[in-house]
Amino acid sequence: MNMKKTGKMVINAVGRLVPVEVNGEQQIPFQGVGKYRPTGRRYGPPLVSCADFPSDGNKLVSNLKEALVKAGLKDGMTISTHHHFRNGDLIANQIFDIAHELGVKNLRWFPSASFPCHEPLIKYLEDGTINRIEGSMNGALGRFASEGRMQGVGVLRSHGGRYQAVQDGEVQIDIAVIAAPTADAFGNANGVDGAAACGLLGFALADSQFAHKVIVVTDNLVPFPCIPWQIQGNYVDYTVKVDKVGDPEKIVSGTTAVTKSPDRLLIAEMTAQFCEEAELIYDGFSYQAGAGGTSLSIGIYFDEILKRKNWKARFVRAGSNQYPVKMLEEGRVDYILDGQTFDLEGVRSMRENPNHVNTSPFTSYNYHGKGNFASMVDVVILGATEVDVNFNANVVTHSDGVLLHGIGGWQNCLFGKTVFLPVPLFRDRIPVIIDEVTTLCGPGELIDVIVTERGIAINPRRTDLLEKLKNSKLPIKTIEQLKEEAEAICGKPAKPEFEDEVIAIVKWVDGTVLDSIRKVKK
Amino acid sequence: MNMKKTGKMVINAVGRLVPVEVNGEQQIPFQGVGKYRPTGRRYGPPLVSCADFPSDGNKLVSNLKEALVKAGLKDGMTISTHHHFRNGDLIANQIFDIAHELGVKNLRWFPSASFPCHEPLIKYLEDGTINRIEGSMNGALGRFASEGRMQGVGVLRSHGGRYQAVQDGEVQIDIAVIAAPTADAFGNANGVDGAAACGLLGFALADSQFAHKVIVVTDNLVPFPCIPWQIQGNYVDYTVKVDKVGDPEKIVSGTTAVTKSPDRLLIAEMTAQFCEEAELIYDGFSYQAGAGGTSLSIGIYFDEILKRKNWKARFVRAGSNQYPVKMLEEGRVDYILDGQTFDLEGVRSMRENPNHVNTSPFTSYNYHGKGNFASMVDVVILGATEVDVNFNANVVTHSDGVLLHGIGGWQNCLFGKTVFLPVPLFRDRIPVIIDEVTTLCGPGELIDVIVTERGIAINPRRTDLLEKLKNSKLPIKTIEQLKEEAEAICGKPAKPEFEDEVIAIVKWVDGTVLDSIRKVKK
Repeated sequence: MNMKKTGKMVINAVGRLVPVEVNGEQQIPFQGVGKYRPTGRRYGPPLVSCADFPSDGNKLVSNLKEALVKAGLKDGMTISTHHHFRNGDLIANQIFDIAHELGVKNLRWFPSASFPCHEPLIKYLEDGTINRIEGSMNGALGRFASEGRMQGVGVLRSHGGRYQAVQDGEVQIDIAVIAAPTADAFGNANGVDGAAACGLLGFALADSQFAHKVIVVTDNLVPFPCIPWQIQGNYVDYTVKVDKVGDPEKIVSGTTAVTKSPDRLLIAEMTAQFCEEAELIYDGFSYQAGAGGTSLSIGIYFDEILKRKNWKARFVRAGSNQYPVKMLEEGRVDYILDGQTFDLEGVRSMRENPNHVNTSPFTSYNYHGKGNFASMVDVVILGATEVDVNFNANVVTHSDGVLLHGIGGWQNCLFGKTVFLPVPLFRDRIPVIIDEVTTLCGPGELIDVIVTERGIAINPRRTDLLEKLKNSKLPIKTIEQLKEEAEAICGKPAKPEFEDEVIAIVKWVDGTVLDSIRKVKK
Repeated sequence: MNMKKTGKMVINAVGRLVPVEVNGEQQIPFQGVGKYRPTGRRYGPPLVSCADFPSDGNKLVSNLKEALVKAGLKDGMTISTHHHFRNGDLIANQIFDIAHELGVKNLRWFPSASFPCHEPLIKYLEDGTINRIEGSMNGALGRFASEGRMQGVGVLRSHGGRYQAVQDGEVQIDIAVIAAPTADAFGNANGVDGAAACGLLGFALADSQFAHKVIVVTDNLVPFPCIPWQIQGNYVDYTVKVDKVGDPEKIVSGTTAVTKSPDRLLIAEMTAQFCEEAELIYDGFSYQAGAGGTSLSIGIYFDEILKRKNWKARFVRAGSNQYPVKMLEEGRVDYILDGQTFDLEGVRSMRENPNHVNTSPFTSYNYHGKGNFASMVDVVILGATEVDVNFNANVVTHSDGVLLHGIGGWQNCLFGKTVFLPVPLFRDRIPVIIDEVTTLCGPGELIDVIVTERGIAINPRRTDLLEKLKNSKLPIKTIEQLKEEAEAICGKPAKPEFEDEVIAIVKWVDGTVLDSIRKVKK
């Protein structure tokens, strides 16, 4: 376990030391935002013929094990899954139980994200069934990696970066397993119907399009055609019927709760007020806000502004929940462009309302496309574990250096027109605004405004915002002032201590290496 | 013009003499249904980066000429268009007017189909602006090709074969021009809204996914996002706003008319009765019928059977029109799976009804996919210009040998479970059932029942149908009997006379060469 996992290190365009080879594959160091140009062609999986598929469209095999065996599961393969079931996923663990049972080793697990429910996979990381996870590692899996216990090096990609990596052939998926709330025997599948309804299946789109073998697993088998077909059966090799694909309560919450913390409510209110004063909100504007408590509250403030002005948003980018759904149904937004549904109202709305549109990492985030939706959004609200005085931000490691979160769509959303990070000035008496982020996930040039309960910092590059807010009563400060205030209260934070060993890398949206994450010192 | 256009000829698996090289490209002779296996990988166009596209999503350029110039239009390129506007297309001719103005030569025009409105392009075929058409050549363009006047050799593909050719990289599209009834400046586009509404844009799907440059042209520009996005802007390079993309009256008819011919009504009634007696119609069955008079009438008979039995069809494959729409709205079919809308009711229904689903040559017909919809349809009704005693059929040339029709989805639909060709025994006193078809478009092994006004012939391979109908009062005869009856009335038809020169080839659904079409003798 103490073997050197990565080769030579180089300093990339933002001064971060990154390996030039990871898991035996050459890497391109980050070259700056919008600087790298991909060469070559979009990846194409092997051609197939209808002559080798059942003419009646019935691709059912008796169980997941049979499907995996037929798909040719063997040592060293890349197996992908999606995370629309979040912590209620019942399928990913089964795949590796089967792999273990079959004695298959050295797999690359390529989930769109992993969750605490995947903690049982640690035993397969330990016994060599799984070589590494390329995808977010939350909680216990992240800690396992941070302790240097994963054989291979983790690769963290944004949702858009994952699509890019698959499309570009950087990651070739051997077998994609797509758990689906509803499907037909041909493999058409959707997330709007069935006991495990999760809204949509966009995170599995790349997998369906580019994997060599695709298995759809469902507990709600309907006669052909399964409508809507968010996943198209024409990409699917085998279908499997199981008793239960997911645990509904852990997939979506019945309700989404706004924050009750006075500090967070203040941050939300100031963010909304800033947007109004800066005239970022207008008739026909668009925004993206997540499903966290502060973000939800900001969305509610935005809605109140729209109501007061008698304006309408053109679209809300979501992670949907009951609040944008209410706006849609009451006519204060034309469209919800949704990448994942966070509560039952989101699922219902997507099922019923053609203006609640399912999107994918391809439409929304893929940087190696002819544009994507992310850069068209007026106001983007994101979180961060750390922000530094150069507006760089971290979302994957904590102040102790431990890898505990994935990137999600965060990097992709940085391309929005004005990006806000509403964050507390400190958490558990550890400053959030610091000299230099532990792990660089987003370059400061893309981050515009930091909103804390004790003041708001505008990126000096945004002279337009500085000008618009110059007479504001909002507590506009410099980022250095915010940092100093945090340190005055909490003291200068200790830097986390690391070993040399790189346990994971952070990719930028274009597939280049933005930063390295090292093994934490015990 | 008398130069030898094709090289060596070989006899393929069905005894047809076909060239091994066409337009400088190697060809694979037809090997039998389901025999050929493609090698290699799905085609991938060059990778691109969002860094080279406007971050506000506005890809508008001032006119089609500017878009074509920016897209790099030059000699020898392949330019694609779709035919959803049918005879009301106003854009394809403009592309070649611009090419001619710019002095560009030797283009390959790759339409999903051409129509009489494209007759003005003959001058560009004559002056070398266009080298050849690969796609259906109806009417005047077909006659031009049949007279040996087109420089290159025409290549006829089915709708599914066109998707297969593009996906497999057999045809690499340099510039796709997608005329759209509605679009946003990012390039998201649909066919359900706008003055030129044609229902859907599925024939342009492959073009959007695989062309190196994609131009969307619309007369109805809406703010982002254009919903639904049947064509995804993430594939689009440039957008163009014009005054008018199509002539609505020639795109869709206000109404679709059933046949009034007593002979055709008899054929329709017998076809439906055959299906009922053979128990091909059941609760949950599916069928595909076109928009021709006889097919429409057959659909109406099917509907009456469903009503009488209190059954429901699971899906109707369409070319939609008012009749299946009525069935959908009255609850006698669950879904319309639609590839093109033929009347205004079809367009309205697709716009309003989520169970009226837009399909594409990928979902429905692509033979190099993991199955497609065509083989799942219970009853398929198709036409033919000629049928021979081996049940082989022709849809592209007339009895005089002149190329006058395209293949459309015809070859693809042959994979349906039971395929009917309801045809008159003769047309203009020329027998339809003959010894050997002039051009082979569909191998007889895939054609099950020929229904004429004077009798019904069942393919001897379908012993199940022969058994089911053995006590029927329907006039079941052998195909030889039908041929003899036709000859008794009309006399033995003269064979068309041809020169040696191959003016076009007919591809099978797998990209192999099924037959050759020769220059007609004057």
